[in-house]
Amino acid sequence: MRVAVITGGVGGARFLRGLQALTHTPQWTDLSITAIANIGDDITLHDLRICPDLDTVMYTLGGGIDNERGWGRTDETFTVHSELTAYGAGPAWFGLGDRDLATHLIRTQMLNAGYALSDVTAALCKRWDIGIELLPMSNDRIETHVTVDHDGERKAMHFQQWWLEHKAEIPAQSFAFVGADTATAAPGVIAALSEADAIVLAPSNPVVSIAPVLAVPGIKEAVMQRPVVGVSPIIAGAAVRGYADACLRAIDVETDAAAVARHFGARAHGGLLNGWLVDDSDHEVCAALTDEGIVTKAVPLWMRDVPTASAMAEASLLLAQDLGA
Amino acid sequence: MRVAVITGGVGGARFLRGLQALTHTPQWTDLSITAIANIGDDITLHDLRICPDLDTVMYTLGGGIDNERGWGRTDETFTVHSELTAYGAGPAWFGLGDRDLATHLIRTQMLNAGYALSDVTAALCKRWDIGIELLPMSNDRIETHVTVDHDGERKAMHFQQWWLEHKAEIPAQSFAFVGADTATAAPGVIAALSEADAIVLAPSNPVVSIAPVLAVPGIKEAVMQRPVVGVSPIIAGAAVRGYADACLRAIDVETDAAAVARHFGARAHGGLLNGWLVDDSDHEVCAALTDEGIVTKAVPLWMRDVPTASAMAEASLLLAQDLGA
Repeated sequence: MRVAVITGGVGGARFLRGLQALTHTPQWTDLSITAIANIGDDITLHDLRICPDLDTVMYTLGGGIDNERGWGRTDETFTVHSELTAYGAGPAWFGLGDRDLATHLIRTQMLNAGYALSDVTAALCKRWDIGIELLPMSNDRIETHVTVDHDGERKAMHFQQWWLEHKAEIPAQSFAFVGADTATAAPGVIAALSEADAIVLAPSNPVVSIAPVLAVPGIKEAVMQRPVVGVSPIIAGAAVRGYADACLRAIDVETDAAAVARHFGARAHGGLLNGWLVDDSDHEVCAALTDEGIVTKAVPLWMRDVPTASAMAEASLLLAQDLGA
Repeated sequence: MRVAVITGGVGGARFLRGLQALTHTPQWTDLSITAIANIGDDITLHDLRICPDLDTVMYTLGGGIDNERGWGRTDETFTVHSELTAYGAGPAWFGLGDRDLATHLIRTQMLNAGYALSDVTAALCKRWDIGIELLPMSNDRIETHVTVDHDGERKAMHFQQWWLEHKAEIPAQSFAFVGADTATAAPGVIAALSEADAIVLAPSNPVVSIAPVLAVPGIKEAVMQRPVVGVSPIIAGAAVRGYADACLRAIDVETDAAAVARHFGARAHGGLLNGWLVDDSDHEVCAALTDEGIVTKAVPLWMRDVPTASAMAEASLLLAQDLGA
């Protein structure tokens, strides 16, 4: 079975690790996985190109992730960051780890030398032996900016600043995926989507992780040709992690598993979703969705470890198979 | 008294620290110091611009140096370097410290933004409060390359590779200060030399630290207008540190305090030196120099700590004053 997964960082990475674990089981030996990762969170700091979602997926699947935090490297230190601060070089709100920094140095040097981000990603992944294909959504530069009313004026700031410095506490008026409209999907992305038996939307932020990927011309069109199962990032009316509620509020969507499904829409009515996987606790909230054209299944969605993530990943594949994938 | 010091890394930096300490004594309150540092050792690794001599002077005067090693930061760690190695990104022979790396990140970012190296150096020095003016010899890119016969062919390699990877064990045929012939002295360099009461050649490598500075058009001419005292980097026929013997051999100069003085030459005969400070142990070896036109004085030249460096620095100033500075 060929699966293409559209993903952001932490939640999507853990889901992918569950999916990756399936490939080692007898039932799923033919499973091949392509992850198409959001790059809207990417930022250049100290002239280093930082791709948080690509790196979180890479480290998580490669065994290098800090499991507690969900992002960044195990046994991380922040010596360079402290020194930069001692020089007065900000921003303080981005915690640049020493181990993580080596990844950015290599990426930046390769990008400066003219390599495409997808080639750089493949080169970095060689070390980590992640067992899946990891593609950035595009080799073009796309950055999510947030429009806010702050200090009496409307302004835009980089998503990372809004998320890390302001902890998403300033109400977002809108999100702009700067560069997306003229971007091209990275090599392999459209093919992976078109050739997939099923496409899975990882339990990532619908507004700032999934939406930027779909904003790259050609990607949504390719997705709409194949069966799509979404995994809810919302459990019992709350984001599993991060500030998804602040993002959903900006696009007038409730922080609710059913509301997010309706936001993506039923394929039968021109939307993305054929299936929707929700947590057991959202069984009732989502009871009406199947009748609305989104076949919904409830399973435990808390990824406490690899086995629970794997069970949930398997449920998404089984749902896709039920839908004809 | 205004002093301009032409300097390389470790030895020159320690000498400058001795000189700096003098400014806090009642006799030398009017002492102002400009250090003109070699940049021929500079190298770009991982797209970071690294200026070892500028940084060694800055860290030494700013209290950030590792005193044991003589270069790099105190309490240094090498986490980023280990990670780069794990990615297969060399070279292994350049030990890039985590604390040190922050300096390179800021420098590189400022250079990329169009700032001149002298402005970058001033910006970095603000943190370290070094108490002297530190100037790179030039804002142009100059790198020392070494011609060697290696593996059956004549080739050139960056000075750092020859010094660090090969430990200067491959005989050097010649040194080229690539870029020097078309370079311009950094702003302030010619003025500092011209306005100096005395110019001091720090106890740095004559071939790869002092010579590259003098190779920048205009610098030697300015130096020749003022009284010059050199401090011997050779004591009792051996380099105090580093591989000066391997460098001197390439230019057919003996590793000997008198031979180095004769290499610089007596001002009376068109050379650089008015005075030459040697170690007590070289008193006899250098006995003839004064008659040859280089007024030579013997004092203890081992810089074991700041007081011994300071005594030696003071001796160089007193010699310059004796010579009319």
